[in-house]
Formats: sequence, C-alpha cells, structure tokens
Amino acid sequence: MSQGVPGTPPPKLFLDTLARVSADPRNCGYAENVGERSLREAVVQEMKVAYGGADGNGEVDVTAEDVAITAGCNLAFFASAMAVAEKGDEVILPVPWYFNHEMTLTSLGIKIVTLQTSPERAFQPSPEDCERLITPKTKAIVLVTPNNPTGAIYPPSLIASFAKLAHAHKIALILDETYRDFLNSAHLPPHHLFSKSSVILPTDWSWRSTIIHLFSFSKSYCIPGHRVGLICASSSLIPQLNKALDNIQICAPRPPQLALASVLPQLRPFVKDVAGALERRHTLFKDSLPSRWKVGAQGGYYAFVQHPFKGVDAMVVCERLAKEMGVVCLPAGFFGPVGEGGERWVRFSVANVDDERVRLVCERLKESEETFGWEIES
Amino acid sequence: MSQGVPGTPPPKLFLDTLARVSADPRNCGYAENVGERSLREAVVQEMKVAYGGADGNGEVDVTAEDVAITAGCNLAFFASAMAVAEKGDEVILPVPWYFNHEMTLTSLGIKIVTLQTSPERAFQPSPEDCERLITPKTKAIVLVTPNNPTGAIYPPSLIASFAKLAHAHKIALILDETYRDFLNSAHLPPHHLFSKSSVILPTDWSWRSTIIHLFSFSKSYCIPGHRVGLICASSSLIPQLNKALDNIQICAPRPPQLALASVLPQLRPFVKDVAGALERRHTLFKDSLPSRWKVGAQGGYYAFVQHPFKGVDAMVVCERLAKEMGVVCLPAGFFGPVGEGGERWVRFSVANVDDERVRLVCERLKESEETFGWEIES
Repeated sequence: MSQGVPGTPPPKLFLDTLARVSADPRNCGYAENVGERSLREAVVQEMKVAYGGADGNGEVDVTAEDVAITAGCNLAFFASAMAVAEKGDEVILPVPWYFNHEMTLTSLGIKIVTLQTSPERAFQPSPEDCERLITPKTKAIVLVTPNNPTGAIYPPSLIASFAKLAHAHKIALILDETYRDFLNSAHLPPHHLFSKSSVILPTDWSWRSTIIHLFSFSKSYCIPGHRVGLICASSSLIPQLNKALDNIQICAPRPPQLALASVLPQLRPFVKDVAGALERRHTLFKDSLPSRWKVGAQGGYYAFVQHPFKGVDAMVVCERLAKEMGVVCLPAGFFGPVGEGGERWVRFSVANVDDERVRLVCERLKESEETFGWEIES
Repeated sequence: MSQGVPGTPPPKLFLDTLARVSADPRNCGYAENVGERSLREAVVQEMKVAYGGADGNGEVDVTAEDVAITAGCNLAFFASAMAVAEKGDEVILPVPWYFNHEMTLTSLGIKIVTLQTSPERAFQPSPEDCERLITPKTKAIVLVTPNNPTGAIYPPSLIASFAKLAHAHKIALILDETYRDFLNSAHLPPHHLFSKSSVILPTDWSWRSTIIHLFSFSKSYCIPGHRVGLICASSSLIPQLNKALDNIQICAPRPPQLALASVLPQLRPFVKDVAGALERRHTLFKDSLPSRWKVGAQGGYYAFVQHPFKGVDAMVVCERLAKEMGVVCLPAGFFGPVGEGGERWVRFSVANVDDERVRLVCERLKESEETFGWEIES
C-alpha cells in the first residue's frame, strides 16, 4: 500500500479513441507548445463542472488562454517553479511534503521554507504560521489538496485564506490539485478561487494575479503512462511559463491530448465511479484498521496513520512491516522533516489495492502488535 | 523553409504498432523512470549499426544501462545541463547555436561561453579556440552534429579532438546527435567515440568518463509529436540524471516507447529512405540556388547560406523575403551573437518542403536580387 498509482485500467472509450488518433499520421507532428487548443477548451468545460457545480453552469472564470498542457503534472510543477523563482529565492512548502516538489525546488537551488503541519490540526496548514514565514525573498506558497502524502483535504475557506495571503504579499499560490476528482459531494466544490463572485473572497478578487493551479490527468483517468498534466494560470503568465515549457518539453505528447479532448465530458461517469470506489475503500480501511492505529487524515489516494508502538520510529516499523508482514507503506520521514511526535506516522495508499487486500493488511497490522513485541501506546 | 520539422509521415508499421499498444490497458501505467527496458535494449542495437558499421557488428561499447529515455531530446538536454552544471557555472556553446540550448542554459542560470564558428572554416568549431575558453568554472562543451542551425557536419576526427579536450579537462562533452541518421555513407560512422578500439583515440579511452550523447526519435522516425528522445551516458551518471528526470518527467510517454522498441530494426530502410530523400533535396537546393547566394554549410535538415546583399542585415532580408516573396527563412541573428560578417547568413530548412517548392524558392531568391533594389556583392 505504498504506491500512488491508479488501481483500475483507463476507460475503454479513451483507449479506443487513443488507438484511433495514434494510427493517424496527421497527429504525429508537434502540438502547439501550450497544448492542443481542443484539449484546452475541453479542460475549461471540466473546470466549470469541477469548480462551478455539477451542471457546469457555475460562474467559473477560466478560458482556454489560461491553460497550458504539460507532459505530466511534475513537469507542470517544475515549469511553474522555474517561472516564479530562481536560485536563492524562497518557496514555502508544508510538511509532510510530496518528495518530488522538494527535489525539484532543491535541484533548482530554490530554498525551501517548511511550514509544519500537525495531527492536532488534522495536517491542515495554518495561514497564520505561513504568514510568519514570508520574507522579501518568498516567491510562492505550494499547497497540495487533497494532500500527498497525508490525504488531508483543505476546505475552501482555508484555501481562500492562503489565496488572500499570497495575494496580499504579491506572491504565487501554487495549488496542486492532482487528486481533485476524488472529493465526495460534502467537499464540493474544492474551492471558490475560480468563481466570478464568491462570498468568501474580496469583491475585487482576481485569481489570475496569484493562483497557479496544477492538475494531472494521470489519476482521474488512470493514464499515468501517457504523461498529460496542465497548468492553469493567468494568461499573462502563460507566455512566461511557455518559455520554460518550450525548453523542457517543446510540447506534451500529442495523441493522448487529442484523445482526451474528444472524450473528456463522456468520461465524467467513469471519474465518479473511480472516486466512489476510492471513497468506499477509504471507509473500509478506516473501519478495518486496528483500534490503536489512529487515522490523522484521509482523502484522495492516501491515509496518514499513527502506529501504536511507543517510541519507535515509523522508519523501523515500516521496515519490519515490509519484511515480516509483507505490508509495504511509507514512514513520515520520507516526506520531509518530522515535527515532535511526527516520527510515528505512516502513509498508506488505498488506490492500488482491492477491498480484500485492505482487510488483509489491517489484519497483519493487528498481528504486528503482538509479533513485534514493542510496547503499545495505551 | 524555416521549420525544423519532418516533411514525411511516419512509417505505417510504427503507426499500426502504436495504435495496438495504445489500446492495451496494460500500457497505461508509469514506465520505469529511465525508460522501457525493451526500448533501451533496442536502442543499443541501433547504436551498434549507427556507430559500428552497417552490419551492426562493430565493436560498440554501449549497454542498456547507459541509456535513459526522455520525453523528447530537449528534455534530454535540459536534464543533462542540470546534471553537470548549476547556476554560476559555465558551459561552452558554439555559435550559431540551437536557441533552445541557449534558453535552457540561461533559464538555469548557467553562464554561456560562446565559441564562435565562421564561414572560413565552414562553421566547424575549433578545439584550440575552445581550449582557450575553458576555466575552472567550465562544466561542459556542447556540440550539435549535424549542426542546427548551420547544417555543418563535424568529422569524426574533430569530434575526437573535442572528446579528448573534454576528457583532459575533466568536463562533459554533450553531443546532440538529433540529425545523426541523415549522414550519407561518406560521413559514416558519425564518430568513433563509442568504439572499443579506435585508432584516433588513446588506447585507454573510455567514452563514459566524458560523453553525454543525446538523440531524438522525432526526426529519424518522423514522430516529433510523440516526444521520445534519449540520453546515453555512463551508467554511473545515469542515476544522477535519473533524479533530474524523475522530477521533470517521471517517465517518457509509454506507448510510443513500446511501439518503437518492437519495430526499430524493421524501420532501418525507412530511415535510409528519408535520409536519401533529404540528401537529394540538399543537392537540388544547392544546384538551384542563384550563384550569388553562397552555401556555407549543409547537412541534416539545414543549409546555411550567405545572401548577396552588400551591407544588409539578414534580419531585414528575411523580413522582406517573407513579406514580399512568401519565402520564410531565419536570419543568423536568431541563433546567437553573429561574428564579423555574420549578419549576412540565413538558415534554410530543406526537411519540410518538396522538390518543386525548393526550385520555386530559389527562383524567388533570384527575383529578389532585382526586386529588392539593394547593391549586390560581386
């Protein structure tokens, strides 16, 4: 239960369409740097549904000119980081972090300022803590929601607070929403930043001055190997991003762009089914987990769980779980510096396992309480 | 005649294979970061043919562990630059340069040290000039052969001199061979760097200590929109490159990797046909060019040509050619700082035009000598 990869195959409609466009010699040339216009337009329609309401009639202020298609969402983050910061600049990153974000920033010589999150606040980052970390060198705040690795889902009001904070300090808010489509109806819409009129944002609010939204087609449509992601940012920033994209990728692979463009609206039921299955598996995992393993946050692909062994680092627990129990999960230490008490947290992915295996894993965790012979937190 | 894009569709065998692997849900997951093993192995076989002789029996010392597949050759260059240099370091780049190389290095804060080439030496870079530019901050020399934009083909002995120079100074030689397959038999093999025993290299020569070879599948197989390129470098450098690749791309798109892996050897006749057609078009262009337009170098996709208008910058000539003659070509100024007299050079691409159009363009160039009313160099 360690890998953040989809557990179901992509929809047949997508595969058939992809096969058809792939066989067409006219689709072998370069795409536009910012991506196929047809896909950028289709993305806008999906964003209207995702952020405006199920009927797609919400007043979502996004146009195809705000969208750039990338060869995966990691490349989207890489290009965004390059566009807003350079060596010596600072970027605020909540901890636990997605390790590729950390590696990208480090490789670009950008200083990471860590914003610690804690189980007491269900791993929600604090805008107040964040504001104290802002310096003249800060260029961006990065949020991932639903979060990787913790699974924490940030409510719209919290996201709005961060957006206002970034706006007030004239820095970017990079919002990675790779797992956006796995929110249940209680959490919809994910936020109101793209709304033309939102009660929780100032009346003169304009997302374009602040927000860089990232999205991946890998998880929602189960096609990680096809490498398609996107950046949605002010159309005034897109040319700058485009320069970075031109150097790194020229363009994203073209056939999957064309295939997605023509089937996205028809795939809405598929995405909903995947989300529903994931939610049921989250519930099953929570219900099957031995009582002394505590869930700190849960959402998207992940659950962040505190193991019950007193004073034992999760690194050691995960090693024994893998070797002796055949259960693979990742310790908090993999996701950045852990705060006080943080060494006991473990990330489980529920995306790539079936229900039977979830139950089995939970039984093994229970077994480990006796087998490992460590003192159990009462 | 401005675009460096293939003028022919890809082979049907590739398209059919791609359609088949694209329809298979098993091929939608992430590939290995360094690329599909099957493609890396197939690449080694193609390199044996390219560098060892037509029968593939040459003693080419390359293994699948030396190869990493990238989402296009620009990403290969980007990752290589990141792996060898950081902000403040220097990289030597011959001028005229491929503008994406310049932009990538600049965007990474790497200082570009220009190595001027000139028509007197047919735009071949001089290893002696290059050596004088090496400082303690130099991390790499970049060569593109056949060159973009000049079309100059560097002979094996010159490439060997640069390799020895880089080796002596313990810096990397990044060798971008995107247009490698468009050499005629007189120019084969492109170089001897990968040979186990070469008379023009020291007996203890090891390419792995110095060489980072880049290649693109876009031109040879006419599939730029599928974004597949590669890095061939010491297997001891690959893990480092792999870290950069993991952050930028995770992996290259998977279906085109699988399709290429299974058909590469069968596509050798196709690549030869494309190369042959390109060579004939180069000859036609040279023969049709008005006598006062002088070819400085020719090869791969490009010809670098001196226009006959005395004291007129190529920028102005190209503008009028586009507006008044419908002929689009690019002035030397697009490819970096021009040396003395360099402002009169123009790049033509012969890849994306048919024979008829080549003749027509040459007629228009002849016409322009009268129409433009400028003094002609006698």
